[in-house]
Amino acid sequence: MQPSYAKARQAKRASYDEEVIHAILDKALVGHVGFIAGGRPMVIPMAYARIGNILYLHGASKTRIARLESVPVCLEVTELTGIVAARSGFHHSVNYRSAIIHGTARHVADDEMDKALDAVLDHLLPGRSLEVRPMSKQERKATGVIALDIEYASAKIRTGPPVDDEEDHQLPIWAGVVPVTTSLGTGIRDGYTPDELTESGSIAAARRKFA
Amino acid sequence: MQPSYAKARQAKRASYDEEVIHAILDKALVGHVGFIAGGRPMVIPMAYARIGNILYLHGASKTRIARLESVPVCLEVTELTGIVAARSGFHHSVNYRSAIIHGTARHVADDEMDKALDAVLDHLLPGRSLEVRPMSKQERKATGVIALDIEYASAKIRTGPPVDDEEDHQLPIWAGVVPVTTSLGTGIRDGYTPDELTESGSIAAARRKFA
Repeated sequence: MQPSYAKARQAKRASYDEEVIHAILDKALVGHVGFIAGGRPMVIPMAYARIGNILYLHGASKTRIARLESVPVCLEVTELTGIVAARSGFHHSVNYRSAIIHGTARHVADDEMDKALDAVLDHLLPGRSLEVRPMSKQERKATGVIALDIEYASAKIRTGPPVDDEEDHQLPIWAGVVPVTTSLGTGIRDGYTPDELTESGSIAAARRKFA
Repeated sequence: MQPSYAKARQAKRASYDEEVIHAILDKALVGHVGFIAGGRPMVIPMAYARIGNILYLHGASKTRIARLESVPVCLEVTELTGIVAARSGFHHSVNYRSAIIHGTARHVADDEMDKALDAVLDHLLPGRSLEVRPMSKQERKATGVIALDIEYASAKIRTGPPVDDEEDHQLPIWAGVVPVTTSLGTGIRDGYTPDELTESGSIAAARRKFA
């Protein structure tokens, strides 16, 4: 027997709840950052981290994004969890958890920069900042960090089966959800890591976090 | 023995090759669409499809995005394939395939709209447009489709192990790549799909496409 849903209907849910939004931000692998450059919208994928109500983004200090200051920035994250196949094209959808954040770029330096860089590292590999060698002065100079104090945030979550029109239910068309899962595998060590050196704790922590 | 990389170095690769960019667009599950609204950058996740050198986006006809006309729009897609753990925070990275497209929104109607809607459906579930019931007049009215003729496009691909500083190679720190994989599972039928109705062909086609 194929796995199946009950006949309950579920719809999209919008949320402005801080806890829901923070949970989505903390579990996403990559941020999609929007800003305006020369009158055009730009979207680029970026590593990020959240500390309290602040998002930190980092890039090479020469990049456009690392030099944004006092301009509006948007960060969007989306975790796709299913493809929703309905009996009509119209009712097709996807299951997902997404968050959209608006803030104003603020250049970050000194202690806040150190904390932000550790947080960005630890976002993908929890505890990695305690495993690596300290940052050099030149590396610090080559790195730019911006903060977004979260000014407006919203989340959207869709779960469950398709919501078809009542009269379509008897059509002989398979309808349901194709689950989409993202998972982290066993680490592949580089050519300079001796075989006897076991995977760092942060790697297993990442597998647990994004499971 | 843990799996490992050879000692070769690999760097990020930028590409303006149409074939490379189209392949990345065709295999991504969700698009991150940027536009300007009230002087602020907006980024929202969207379903999309490509036909030749045109991207199609659709949404409810009342939404802001479906009503964009003759304004610049950016679409970004990113497939994360690995977390790159280096011996220094600075050299941490991710492996990914991403594409960034710029175009100008153009409202789509009539035959082009029909083709675009089928293409958006078939992007996630190849062949699904031939399995579902035809679209009604009201549904068509409630749907907005915009096209972006691709005016500027670029791709970035990073693969392979971390690129550490030579002098860090002897540090007793595990370095390598944590593979990230996204996969589609067996379809979960909804409560109105009888057990004897086997999964549609488009569902298996999606599993093959996004494997």
